[in-house]
Amino acid sequence: MQYRRLGRSGLQVSELSYGSWVTYANQIDTAAARECMAAAYDAGVNFFDNAEVYAAGRSEVVMGEALKALGWPRMSYIVSTKFYWGLAEGPNQKNTLNRKYLMQAIDGSLQRLQLDHVDLVFCHRPDPGTPVEETVWAMSDMIRQGKALYWGTSEWSADEIRAAWEIAERHHLHKPVMEQPQYHLFHRLRVEQEYARLYEDIGLGLTTWSPLASGLLTGKYRGGIPADSRGAMEHMGFLREQLTDPAKNEAVAGLDALAREIGGTVTQLAIAWCAKNPRVSTVITGASRLTQLRDNLKAAELLPRLAPEVLARIDELTLALAR
Amino acid sequence: MQYRRLGRSGLQVSELSYGSWVTYANQIDTAAARECMAAAYDAGVNFFDNAEVYAAGRSEVVMGEALKALGWPRMSYIVSTKFYWGLAEGPNQKNTLNRKYLMQAIDGSLQRLQLDHVDLVFCHRPDPGTPVEETVWAMSDMIRQGKALYWGTSEWSADEIRAAWEIAERHHLHKPVMEQPQYHLFHRLRVEQEYARLYEDIGLGLTTWSPLASGLLTGKYRGGIPADSRGAMEHMGFLREQLTDPAKNEAVAGLDALAREIGGTVTQLAIAWCAKNPRVSTVITGASRLTQLRDNLKAAELLPRLAPEVLARIDELTLALAR
Amino acid sequence: MQYRRLGRSGLQVSELSYGSWVTYANQIDTAAARECMAAAYDAGVNFFDNAEVYAAGRSEVVMGEALKALGWPRMSYIVSTKFYWGLAEGPNQKNTLNRKYLMQAIDGSLQRLQLDHVDLVFCHRPDPGTPVEETVWAMSDMIRQGKALYWGTSEWSADEIRAAWEIAERHHLHKPVMEQPQYHLFHRLRVEQEYARLYEDIGLGLTTWSPLASGLLTGKYRGGIPADSRGAMEHMGFLREQLTDPAKNEAVAGLDALAREIGGTVTQLAIAWCAKNPRVSTVITGASRLTQLRDNLKAAELLPRLAPEVLARIDELTLALAR
Amino acid sequence: MQYRRLGRSGLQVSELSYGSWVTYANQIDTAAARECMAAAYDAGVNFFDNAEVYAAGRSEVVMGEALKALGWPRMSYIVSTKFYWGLAEGPNQKNTLNRKYLMQAIDGSLQRLQLDHVDLVFCHRPDPGTPVEETVWAMSDMIRQGKALYWGTSEWSADEIRAAWEIAERHHLHKPVMEQPQYHLFHRLRVEQEYARLYEDIGLGLTTWSPLASGLLTGKYRGGIPADSRGAMEHMGFLREQLTDPAKNEAVAGLDALAREIGGTVTQLAIAWCAKNPRVSTVITGASRLTQLRDNLKAAELLPRLAPEVLARIDELTLALAR
Repeated sequence: MQYRRLGRSGLQVSELSYGSWVTYANQIDTAAARECMAAAYDAGVNFFDNAEVYAAGRSEVVMGEALKALGWPRMSYIVSTKFYWGLAEGPNQKNTLNRKYLMQAIDGSLQRLQLDHVDLVFCHRPDPGTPVEETVWAMSDMIRQGKALYWGTSEWSADEIRAAWEIAERHHLHKPVMEQPQYHLFHRLRVEQEYARLYEDIGLGLTTWSPLASGLLTGKYRGGIPADSRGAMEHMGFLREQLTDPAKNEAVAGLDALAREIGGTVTQLAIAWCAKNPRVSTVITGASRLTQLRDNLKAAELLPRLAPEVLARIDELTLALAR
Repeated sequence: MQYRRLGRSGLQVSELSYGSWVTYANQIDTAAARECMAAAYDAGVNFFDNAEVYAAGRSEVVMGEALKALGWPRMSYIVSTKFYWGLAEGPNQKNTLNRKYLMQAIDGSLQRLQLDHVDLVFCHRPDPGTPVEETVWAMSDMIRQGKALYWGTSEWSADEIRAAWEIAERHHLHKPVMEQPQYHLFHRLRVEQEYARLYEDIGLGLTTWSPLASGLLTGKYRGGIPADSRGAMEHMGFLREQLTDPAKNEAVAGLDALAREIGGTVTQLAIAWCAKNPRVSTVITGASRLTQLRDNLKAAELLPRLAPEVLARIDELTLALAR
Repeated sequence: MQYRRLGRSGLQVSELSYGSWVTYANQIDTAAARECMAAAYDAGVNFFDNAEVYAAGRSEVVMGEALKALGWPRMSYIVSTKFYWGLAEGPNQKNTLNRKYLMQAIDGSLQRLQLDHVDLVFCHRPDPGTPVEETVWAMSDMIRQGKALYWGTSEWSADEIRAAWEIAERHHLHKPVMEQPQYHLFHRLRVEQEYARLYEDIGLGLTTWSPLASGLLTGKYRGGIPADSRGAMEHMGFLREQLTDPAKNEAVAGLDALAREIGGTVTQLAIAWCAKNPRVSTVITGASRLTQLRDNLKAAELLPRLAPEVLARIDELTLALAR
Repeated sequence: MQYRRLGRSGLQVSELSYGSWVTYANQIDTAAARECMAAAYDAGVNFFDNAEVYAAGRSEVVMGEALKALGWPRMSYIVSTKFYWGLAEGPNQKNTLNRKYLMQAIDGSLQRLQLDHVDLVFCHRPDPGTPVEETVWAMSDMIRQGKALYWGTSEWSADEIRAAWEIAERHHLHKPVMEQPQYHLFHRLRVEQEYARLYEDIGLGLTTWSPLASGLLTGKYRGGIPADSRGAMEHMGFLREQLTDPAKNEAVAGLDALAREIGGTVTQLAIAWCAKNPRVSTVITGASRLTQLRDNLKAAELLPRLAPEVLARIDELTLALAR
């Protein structure tokens, strides 16, 4: 496993990392989480992504228990959480980045994770109902109080990220260092175009999510929605149309052939393609089974085989379908 | 119940809120407070206003006990306190906003409220004997120390509020976000004229008090001072002249007729009129009885019925008498 | 007793205050200290001056014990300490204002005083061996950490005070608000001339010491050095020449006559003269006996009798001898 | 022993100090460390240099135990530690100055040293993989949190030191005050030339290491590598070529003669020569035996004998070989 700087910061993250979204506390319990985390750690993964909202807080509980059982040195791994969606109804408890929610939320996350600080803390979405300045102060205060080490954003616009950075610079506060955007073969324009200036201007790092487009890029939806897949879950219905898009699934078939040519699977090719972008600090992969996790991590071996001509063929197959 | 942003901050406050002034520990005890607070909370009220000086600290004790008994999630409600008047004689214990008083007062309030932080903390009046800069530092330090989340002022002049904001901006301190002014049909010029530029310039929010002009706008003083009213209380004598003003009581009679026309009471109309101003973040109402509280909160239903022509008729009846 | 603002700050100090220098732990023990402090407090004194070096730390111990026994509300009194001279030999333990000494000294003082914070903390002398910036940071950090509320200087030059103020302003640190200079009829030029611009420019407050010129202005040295006086103490030998200066003692005789004319003693006149200067926030008086303390505090009654013509006659008697 | 200001700071360090590198926990245990530290302290040494990486953390453990046993007043001694090399493999655990490593490392050091703060904390090497700004924030935060009193660098370039100072000045953070460079007769250009402007511009202090060039300047390698010397240690192999350099050993022979002329040993002359440079705040010497330590400290007596003509002869013997 290779490590990369998180943008211009000095933090080193493994190029592939492991996130608990969807799976933890839903599909897998603490024992399974512990097994997967141990396998990832042994493979060199040092970043374990989480969020308050994942499984409504239980994903943090599961990861906290697993971490406790695993007993790794605190310095050797990176844990994140994210705030925005909230855990309860109520005007200051969901869909907000106001000071009240953020300052009270971090204490809840640390308690669930059984940690005294997280390494990374994200604003999980932008909140047009709170001034960026209020959010920047609260995130910076979390760091000043020792409850987090670095902060960043997830799915913010380039303009919002720059606003946060400039406000922090002007008021001598801790600046955002990373963004967590969706990034995969069918969703690449924000990372490649909208954020283009931010990498040099403010040193933005990226921890990208959904490298497999919710499973579309595994090829498993080429023949419809399998009964045991995420696409079949009731609360994931919003994904169904995209997962069964015929043109995209045809492109996946082409990628599948290409992946075999270079000795991998389409899944590995899709993950490796994300990591090939030098602006990407780490590609977060999920897994509900150990075999799946190990398969995903083999994408690292495919990375050196993504030669310019391979990348050109990938673009040919997918670029027209990407947004 | 609708929620509004507290000025330009991200904090959402219910358009009607519940304050403990006059009533707590004087007219109502912890059991009654708990009952009223529960009713307000169930109706969607999320802001409970208080101050160090209310009932000489006992209002905080009563609210603290009620909150403890009610056991609501901390994130779901907003509590305030205010400092200036003090609890004891002595040059640094009353009528001051100096650092010594403020830093020692917040610890006392948190103890009485049995909370580790309040959401809002107000400078209850301006103090010409303390530089605004000294007060801004102390208020900001309360927030930095985690003892409060937002700070503001009460009955400060526009110039004083702006001075505080600019000093905080220049020294990178926490800025004031709200003001608590008196605001009702007979007292509207400060909110509508003096503060006019502050809403856009610094995003000032308003938590207004005395929507009923100490009861005058309930109509209950139209026939003189009832024996069981606030106007009859010994320490409220300063209110008597205003409460029995003939011209104002005649206007109240007109408002009463108008209120019936649109299906409400004059009390509800007076409260709804305050909330109709989009610069007002929340209208603080008090109540010593549950029925009274419920009546007051019905003002929210009247709000959509305050059409432009209704507002024009209200102005006709009252504007000449307002200051 | 009247109260005055400590310079432009909002802190109110009694125009006469009570200091422990020389007397505490040397001439008087905890019981006597407690008695004197109670008498001063009852007379309206709210500021009790102290320093780390007074009686080598024991003055703080005595005052701490007295305060504990007296049990006054913390908000009702002001306690100070001062750092520079140190309690031990060693390059960072005496005659310094470096960060190491200051940050370690404040913890020692608070422990001796049995307080969690002092109100005022002074740099007891300037230290040419430490940059003003280093000292300003340390003093400001004491306030940020809640160990003190206001900081100031003692016997610093106007230039040094201004330097400290400007550095604090530029780096957004807590600024010095007061200076403790020697000030009496024979030592007035620094306060009246050197500091002249500082009162308006930075709002400097003064807590003046030695209103009686070590006893010279009581008249007791007119006939030589009494056996039981401070001038007779071995470690006070440095004062002897000044105390027996014939011209000054002659002036004291003239002041004595003048004091009687307006119904006071020369001691009271000397103290009242200091307090007459509106730039002076408080005049610190010491006392080793209760009767002496009560006598001193009666200076407050003499204050209104210091009419312009009386002040002119005082100047006539003393100005030529003053520095 | 004389004391000097640590650059422009107010901290006074003994011109000779005692470091634990190489020796602690390797060559000497707690009892021996305690004996040597006591001897140094009695001779006036007040600075005890250490680092996280020395003996992989055990040097801090040994010094912590010794300090505890010695029971000196905390104000009377200065302890340092340094971060960069780390104690474990892992991308954020070695060769880094990122926030994660630094903030987690200081807690480990304080625990091993059994102290609640160190006096000096150094960035043990520059880290091109972390922005200087990130490191400056973390070092300043250590001071703000009370875990250290002053921070500095070790073996940073002039440009890097200035960058750190300017970033701290601009963001109102604690600035670096000292650098710990290698400095001896054969390694003097960085201190004398590269850093030349920094002494005046930012007041840089120096705590220099290796005054004896790893033993070369003791003369003990003139006849090859003795079996019981550092040069014979397996993990010190990297030093062998330098230690047996013929030209340098010939120069040492000349220095030896010169030293005898002025009544000292070549070891003492080499140490004294470092201390002769007024830009040097303190020369750190090591010792694995008490007699060696006492010998080294006698360099202080030689200092006044380094007259201009002696210095000229030293230059003649060594300058051409120095870098």
